[in-house]
Amino acid sequence: MDLQTALLAVDETMQQVVASSVDVLRKASRHILSAGGKRARPRLAFLSYQAVGGTDLSVMVPIAAALEIVHTATLVHDDINDHGTLRRGRPTVNAIWGRTFALLTGDYLFAKVYELMAPQGDLNTVFAEATVKLVEGETMQAQAAKDGTLDQKLYFEIVAHKTAALFAAATKLGALRGGGPEAQVQALADYGFNVGMAFQIIDDILDLLADSEQLGKTAGVDVAQGKGIAVAAQGRDGNNGVGVATLEAADGKGADRKGDKHQDPLLALRRDMLQGGAVERGQKLAHQFVTRALDHLKALPHSAAVAELRTWRGR
Amino acid sequence: MDLQTALLAVDETMQQVVASSVDVLRKASRHILSAGGKRARPRLAFLSYQAVGGTDLSVMVPIAAALEIVHTATLVHDDINDHGTLRRGRPTVNAIWGRTFALLTGDYLFAKVYELMAPQGDLNTVFAEATVKLVEGETMQAQAAKDGTLDQKLYFEIVAHKTAALFAAATKLGALRGGGPEAQVQALADYGFNVGMAFQIIDDILDLLADSEQLGKTAGVDVAQGKGIAVAAQGRDGNNGVGVATLEAADGKGADRKGDKHQDPLLALRRDMLQGGAVERGQKLAHQFVTRALDHLKALPHSAAVAELRTWRGR
Repeated sequence: MDLQTALLAVDETMQQVVASSVDVLRKASRHILSAGGKRARPRLAFLSYQAVGGTDLSVMVPIAAALEIVHTATLVHDDINDHGTLRRGRPTVNAIWGRTFALLTGDYLFAKVYELMAPQGDLNTVFAEATVKLVEGETMQAQAAKDGTLDQKLYFEIVAHKTAALFAAATKLGALRGGGPEAQVQALADYGFNVGMAFQIIDDILDLLADSEQLGKTAGVDVAQGKGIAVAAQGRDGNNGVGVATLEAADGKGADRKGDKHQDPLLALRRDMLQGGAVERGQKLAHQFVTRALDHLKALPHSAAVAELRTWRGR
Repeated sequence: MDLQTALLAVDETMQQVVASSVDVLRKASRHILSAGGKRARPRLAFLSYQAVGGTDLSVMVPIAAALEIVHTATLVHDDINDHGTLRRGRPTVNAIWGRTFALLTGDYLFAKVYELMAPQGDLNTVFAEATVKLVEGETMQAQAAKDGTLDQKLYFEIVAHKTAALFAAATKLGALRGGGPEAQVQALADYGFNVGMAFQIIDDILDLLADSEQLGKTAGVDVAQGKGIAVAAQGRDGNNGVGVATLEAADGKGADRKGDKHQDPLLALRRDMLQGGAVERGQKLAHQFVTRALDHLKALPHSAAVAELRTWRGR
């Protein structure tokens, strides 16, 4: 089984495992799971398995499917909390089936993750730890958005929890299942963590740049809700941002906004972010995390899988 | 460690395992987990462990805690969907922290269940299966309430999924962890399933009878939302209920309601249910499930634990 076949097997497994006799759970789960998505976590898990010498990708398929499903479960619940209407180019589960069934579909997907992983012995400890972090990260983000307390330090903590922890789990699970020695398992876990940081920062930049059509999800939600890199860059009070991108002339821009009442405030905020250099600084930061990630790959023997991990950038 | 000590250890474990550094998750989790509750599932798990000859209750503590937490997680999410404001005599998580954080607290509790169970090897398959059924049962119930399609057959299916499956898992997990032979494991699983059916039917009757203060949760929610035994008893169109309790003179009561516009419609509906005999018939049904449960206990050798299982009625 090559990588492409393994990724197709993940899609097949996901469709099969959600074959509930309860119509709404089956339909809503298949709707969101078949909507595409980058399959970043399954791909990294497979490549990490091969990187330590694993030869039978089929044993990784249920684990890779569980990684993709747990990620999807959090998206379904996120879209409830964010009132998102578009995800992966399709209407969200809450937009079609309403909040109650979206909540239950997310729960169902979590339960199916557990079912898929149940036979995997010790790997469950790694997976469970990442799942806890995932939920903690989402909560930290919601709390920071509510309180308006997002700064760079907290932004990194959130990204580490909500994204990088699951990436690290994906690469670690692949390395463990592939029987890699401890040093290689750790190196791949560290690689996954840093790649996850870069991935999320780039995702936040895309959210800042894209319009809804390009992105396939409700764009600008992060900016509108006080989340993500733009707000972290701007700082708590709009002009004392640290590190990622201090806005150069926040005071002047604030005045601009006040004098332009008919303009969409979201557009104005976004324009400010872009002018403030958040994108360039975010890209620089993502690049630093990628550099660290590549450093960790040096602990691994050369192989086609490691070469692919070296050039992987989330697509 | 005796049973009372083991139950205290469950409470201690639950408090410890939710010690998140994210304030709202820690506080909200401890709020709902320390609010009492009957600890029915932990108790049944411990007794089943002892019933097959298990002697060290401490090994069952994390499993018993996971059973109680997964049940609590569904309560937290239920209270979001039902707009419940009172649970176990306290304000619900959504009432205090709002919907977004209640959703995330439920997710966090699910993740902690997974973390607690991760080291438990093959038992995870049993636990995962019950978790899937739990979510399916909640979904079937929400769907039936929305469509107004609840009848007795569907009511039983819902109770089997949302309650009895987890009771069966509790007794089965206890029996498996205690090293019981296959026939005893199956007998205890069957006992748990039937006790779970009876338990939920009695809970639905209490919901019908109690006022909020007595029950410690927002009472009458089931009747108001087209769920539970009362509606199953009444039947889809209000006068063709089957089995549990056909309303004897539904037409006349319907006319009553119309002529009494100032009366709370919920109270009127409840009065109708009680007059229709739903309570008596529900009690009879619960009794039948208890009888079946006790039959299954015959497969087990006499012991103090089995004697306690025989007289256990949910308190």
